[in-house]
Amino acid sequence: MENIADKIIKASHDKKSLLVVGLDPVVENLPDFLIEGNTTDDYCEAILKSNKIVIDAVSDHVVAVKPQLAYYEVFGSRGLYALEETIKYAKSKNLIVINDAKRGDIGSTSAAYAEAFLGSSDIVADMVTVNPYMGEDSYNPFIKKAKETGRGLFLLLKTSNPSSKDLQDLILENGNSLYMHLADKINKITEGTIGEKGFSFIGAVVGATHPEESKALRDVLPNTLFLMPGFGHQGGDVSNVKALLNNNGDGILCSSSRGVIFSYMGADNWKKINESTMFAEINNAALKLKEEINKIRN
Amino acid sequence: MENIADKIIKASHDKKSLLVVGLDPVVENLPDFLIEGNTTDDYCEAILKSNKIVIDAVSDHVVAVKPQLAYYEVFGSRGLYALEETIKYAKSKNLIVINDAKRGDIGSTSAAYAEAFLGSSDIVADMVTVNPYMGEDSYNPFIKKAKETGRGLFLLLKTSNPSSKDLQDLILENGNSLYMHLADKINKITEGTIGEKGFSFIGAVVGATHPEESKALRDVLPNTLFLMPGFGHQGGDVSNVKALLNNNGDGILCSSSRGVIFSYMGADNWKKINESTMFAEINNAALKLKEEINKIRN
Repeated sequence: MENIADKIIKASHDKKSLLVVGLDPVVENLPDFLIEGNTTDDYCEAILKSNKIVIDAVSDHVVAVKPQLAYYEVFGSRGLYALEETIKYAKSKNLIVINDAKRGDIGSTSAAYAEAFLGSSDIVADMVTVNPYMGEDSYNPFIKKAKETGRGLFLLLKTSNPSSKDLQDLILENGNSLYMHLADKINKITEGTIGEKGFSFIGAVVGATHPEESKALRDVLPNTLFLMPGFGHQGGDVSNVKALLNNNGDGILCSSSRGVIFSYMGADNWKKINESTMFAEINNAALKLKEEINKIRN
Repeated sequence: MENIADKIIKASHDKKSLLVVGLDPVVENLPDFLIEGNTTDDYCEAILKSNKIVIDAVSDHVVAVKPQLAYYEVFGSRGLYALEETIKYAKSKNLIVINDAKRGDIGSTSAAYAEAFLGSSDIVADMVTVNPYMGEDSYNPFIKKAKETGRGLFLLLKTSNPSSKDLQDLILENGNSLYMHLADKINKITEGTIGEKGFSFIGAVVGATHPEESKALRDVLPNTLFLMPGFGHQGGDVSNVKALLNNNGDGILCSSSRGVIFSYMGADNWKKINESTMFAEINNAALKLKEEINKIRN
């Protein structure tokens, strides 16, 4: 079975892109033409329509799209239906889909989450983000399922948010930080999971807001794809991540959400824009970001 | 606004119970009479019918029910609809509902999760479990929303699963364990959140499988409700938790899932039981567990 990391790297070369766009819809940030009323059904329809426009506008420029589950769960089952339709649409455009869910629980429960996100449910996608706080019996079911289905996961390692320091940066009695300790663990569990292009189907989330830390993590984890949120709105700088690429220019996915999907909000009177303006703004933002990132690749 | 911890403690005295039953439906574990076919719709209907029987059977014996999100998400939007109907039904029986979701993300995303679980969505309940791995900006939005809506949260502190040791037990450079470090943090953030009965609307998840650790945690956190999974199937022993109660017999919620909701699986030919047998078995299992726990309270 094809290793999902190989598939990602192949798409990345075919499209000349390291970009992932987050599908984090927020109704207040959508132009008026998308919103037909004030009910949950209206909002969920607006989200789905918006996502389809975003997908059309970015599909040539991105390797993957990354729906953030919270923005769908906030509308309950109807929000999750919008997610299902979004995933279907993205797959019809040959995009890789990463569910940003940050799940993790005791083994039996993680097995149910793994089935939901990497097995055969309506919300299944190619990869899922996983929270490792509960230890290896909480993420092993995801690894097992990914192995069976040819999908993959990204373990949270050093997240992009300021408070990631609270637990992840704690110094242990042996002098290592918690995130370096976890990196050593990930290094061990990726044995036997490396694809032809040199990367494991078990990736890691490493915030673009931490350039020094990410370099130290790359030294320990040469075969781990880093999913890097935090560019744009959160302040991460593209020039800092060059050192994370291997000789083929592979090893990271740069994720941006608000900076692309809400790029039209910089315009005057953005609430009143029409679909073609929305498309053009998002398309242009994705193109520019893709090209900015590509500078570090050459 | 009433503090949810006060509401829990009042219900606990009214019902003479410290029991919470987990609603973790698994289709293969349901009797045949509940399952009309092999489609996702059939399964979701079976889950909802099963949950209603469980709720009817346990409602006199439990303070709260605790749906585990994974077992609904595995059926996508239709599973989440079954959850919504389950929550509605539980509320109609005056039960407190704890969504066991273990969510947590960067601030803006956690705010969306907080709205989903503690705000005004279709899956909103009284409390939600929250994963603290990403630090305080990941759980503060839940605290803020809980304060606004009179709801509450349980932060994962020392979880019941064997691998909880992997990260949570790590010893820091100051000699403290990670979970004790987090307990000190929780102690600080609960200031100003304590209700009339002496407990905060910010609780903690502490596995019943860790009697020594939980006593140490109680010393640091006298005003924190402990949601304690791990009784029964996972091996936690009721007699070990007496030391965690205050003079009024308050301070913990004992959670059991499989031992109650699948109690009928001990019977011969359980697949063929009818509704009244299923009800009787679950009702009896909840009663017995409630009474066993009450022994430590007196």
